[in-house]
Amino acid sequence: MSKASMSFILRLKLDKQTASFGKIATVISSSGGDLVAIDVIKENKQTTLRDLSINVDQKDAQNLIINELRKLEGISIQHTTDRTFLAHSGGKIHVVPKVKIDNRDDMSRVYTPEVARVCEAIDQDVERAHEYTIKKNAVAVISDGTAVLGLGKIKPEAAMPVMEGKAMLFKQFADIDAYPICLDTQDPEEIITIVKALRPTFGGINLEDIASPNCFSIEQRLKQELNIPVFHDDQHGTAIVALAGLLNALTLVSKPIETCKIIVCGIGAAGMAITNMLLKAGATNVIGVDVEGALHCRKKYERPGWNEFANKTNPNNEEGELCEVIKDADVFIGVSAPGLLTQSDIKQMAKSPIVFALANPNPEIQPEEAKPYAAVIATGRSDYPNQVNNVLCFPGIFRGALDCRAKEINDEMKLAAAKAIASTIQEDELDAEYIIPSVFNREVVPSIRQAVINAAITTGVAQIEPDSH
Amino acid sequence: MSKASMSFILRLKLDKQTASFGKIATVISSSGGDLVAIDVIKENKQTTLRDLSINVDQKDAQNLIINELRKLEGISIQHTTDRTFLAHSGGKIHVVPKVKIDNRDDMSRVYTPEVARVCEAIDQDVERAHEYTIKKNAVAVISDGTAVLGLGKIKPEAAMPVMEGKAMLFKQFADIDAYPICLDTQDPEEIITIVKALRPTFGGINLEDIASPNCFSIEQRLKQELNIPVFHDDQHGTAIVALAGLLNALTLVSKPIETCKIIVCGIGAAGMAITNMLLKAGATNVIGVDVEGALHCRKKYERPGWNEFANKTNPNNEEGELCEVIKDADVFIGVSAPGLLTQSDIKQMAKSPIVFALANPNPEIQPEEAKPYAAVIATGRSDYPNQVNNVLCFPGIFRGALDCRAKEINDEMKLAAAKAIASTIQEDELDAEYIIPSVFNREVVPSIRQAVINAAITTGVAQIEPDSH
Repeated sequence: MSKASMSFILRLKLDKQTASFGKIATVISSSGGDLVAIDVIKENKQTTLRDLSINVDQKDAQNLIINELRKLEGISIQHTTDRTFLAHSGGKIHVVPKVKIDNRDDMSRVYTPEVARVCEAIDQDVERAHEYTIKKNAVAVISDGTAVLGLGKIKPEAAMPVMEGKAMLFKQFADIDAYPICLDTQDPEEIITIVKALRPTFGGINLEDIASPNCFSIEQRLKQELNIPVFHDDQHGTAIVALAGLLNALTLVSKPIETCKIIVCGIGAAGMAITNMLLKAGATNVIGVDVEGALHCRKKYERPGWNEFANKTNPNNEEGELCEVIKDADVFIGVSAPGLLTQSDIKQMAKSPIVFALANPNPEIQPEEAKPYAAVIATGRSDYPNQVNNVLCFPGIFRGALDCRAKEINDEMKLAAAKAIASTIQEDELDAEYIIPSVFNREVVPSIRQAVINAAITTGVAQIEPDSH
Repeated sequence: MSKASMSFILRLKLDKQTASFGKIATVISSSGGDLVAIDVIKENKQTTLRDLSINVDQKDAQNLIINELRKLEGISIQHTTDRTFLAHSGGKIHVVPKVKIDNRDDMSRVYTPEVARVCEAIDQDVERAHEYTIKKNAVAVISDGTAVLGLGKIKPEAAMPVMEGKAMLFKQFADIDAYPICLDTQDPEEIITIVKALRPTFGGINLEDIASPNCFSIEQRLKQELNIPVFHDDQHGTAIVALAGLLNALTLVSKPIETCKIIVCGIGAAGMAITNMLLKAGATNVIGVDVEGALHCRKKYERPGWNEFANKTNPNNEEGELCEVIKDADVFIGVSAPGLLTQSDIKQMAKSPIVFALANPNPEIQPEEAKPYAAVIATGRSDYPNQVNNVLCFPGIFRGALDCRAKEINDEMKLAAAKAIASTIQEDELDAEYIIPSVFNREVVPSIRQAVINAAITTGVAQIEPDSH
């Protein structure tokens, strides 16, 4: 957590007779705060209302400062605002006209009566919606609030800040107009009905933070029944970025993916998607591990998708707990829970082991613990090197899909995206601490875009061939 | 239709050997066009590609120019773009972050990990969604494409340009973030289900261009089942602006609404809403006229709402066609079809007759024809004085409703909005050609806003009392 994200603003009402600003400043400083700004809000003869912007290193310091200030004479704390909440005040996005309407002439062109000609033209040929409406560049970011970040199921209103943040990233990184929609229903059929009905408005659907198993059926049905890209980012975004990182890690340790033994720990939505991508990329020996140990095809499972999963993985039918099947593995990819991987597990792995401990916010093993034994380590965290971050993928993959009017985002496009991300790091730049590019690397989105367009054209799902740019 | 809205752009491919630009310019000019700009798009040894921007007075001139140019040697017309279509290219709105994400610190505040704290705060108290998400200022503009402008039922994709235009107006006039959603369903129950599910995202619902009778049931059910404002603009927007104009017209001719005989011609969605507003404003003698003549309570009707309508109107049970019941009427309000009202009808009306011929685009009587006999005339058209234009109402009424977190938009708020619109014209400014303010009058929105907030507070539907601004 960075310093600045722990800034907060205190609104104090000070009695001019009794309060001492010197004492206030001393208390803030001695309690671990850094007073960075003062704004006078209101002033009268008796009192003054001031906003104090304070930076702190730790959350505790904020409480300490407030408690210490309360002890001073002539001070009343009106309210506390931290900068994160302030950044969310009134929401994080707005809907802005591309041109101003300053007079009747402007209005007659974008609204009645002239707009009717555009409506008629689209009614005659509905393909023109991609030319003359926002559909061309609009993606709905849709959630039911059932699997939000590490918070699990929360109210759909409470999921909005994540979806708004995602919309910001879509615009900032790929100039896509994404609109966040949190639905007040958790019924898969109802969600499918709603998303299908939104089709005239959007050119793509980004499903987000929907819990399994509903996320599978919703995505699958929508892919079948809609002719625009549908993409559940929690599954495929994670899988694509993880694969990108793995491809570079394997280059570093000079191992081909085809002969690697790869353990995927945690066979939920993300684990299944990662496994699919690994197989698509050529892996032949992937073993899924979950609460029942290594999944294999001689056992029958009740969890949706597990039998299908077991059938296409674990060719040697290895059995046992993680600590057993991890023996001689080249790669560990965890999307499970904190602390599941131990140092002795890594010691059992093959030479130059690769450890992707992606559980969030606390990984399967702390990077410090893994470091003495692992050749390459990646996590889901921003405060360690090699962050597997979905933000690397979704802007570029949708940019490519929208630009070639892809009917769907298929496996070939996802694989192309992973390779594009990996290739933004040159082979001579590769390092154990640099296998995944920064989300602020400006090459990533154009690189993914072009790769995705090429794959869409090759596989016949592109409806137009855009200019390269 | 204004001059500028009939501008268009021609893309010409010219053979350098045979084409003569002088001849091209001559043809454009002699065919009624004004060549205002030339852009060279591509150039090679043999050919040059140029965009010519041309203004024309009449649509015919565009076709004439194209036909005449086709006759010239060495010219091929690649495509024609008119400025209206150009203004719609790629859609008319975009979704923009309020702050830029330039670095990890920014990202951690508006997205993971810090966003989780905001999500948790909202999950604990869902009312905070109005503070920390776009819900505070977001209105969905929702249509099923069944009654778009004068076009009737068109494909939902084809209705998008109208809804996008509406979103532009919401932002421009009232700083409201409206998002256009055209639904791929015409089933009222499905529409109700969808809009209810959108509740976590939006602070208000503007229903638009939904045909009757579905518009009634959809609006009624949503009003009952949602605790945010739901407003079918085609009904209530028209009714509010028409009443605003009528209040000023009655002031001009010194008649109180209570004693006026008012004919409402066309008892569809708009006619019913207008009648409701008239009764709410104190009118006692409103007579509805439709294909079966004057509606009265001694007859039974099959059309939804007509029996209810007859019961609360036409107290003297007048019967007959429009030309009969119009006798001695003080006011005619038409929301029906072109040409339904004649000069001899107006001659039969009471002294100083008021004629609102609101059928679009062609009114019940042309203003030129009505003028010799009517004291005040209003239409739905922008090219005559006194335009009854919904744009005068919806931005201000939603601004007020959102700012006081109104649970609904009730009749008292609508009446207050009408009076607020009327009052933006001072009594000494009133004139037969100036009873309705311009949509560009900056006083209108703040005036409606304050009136709507006051009415919401008085009637107990306001959830907060905002500062006046």
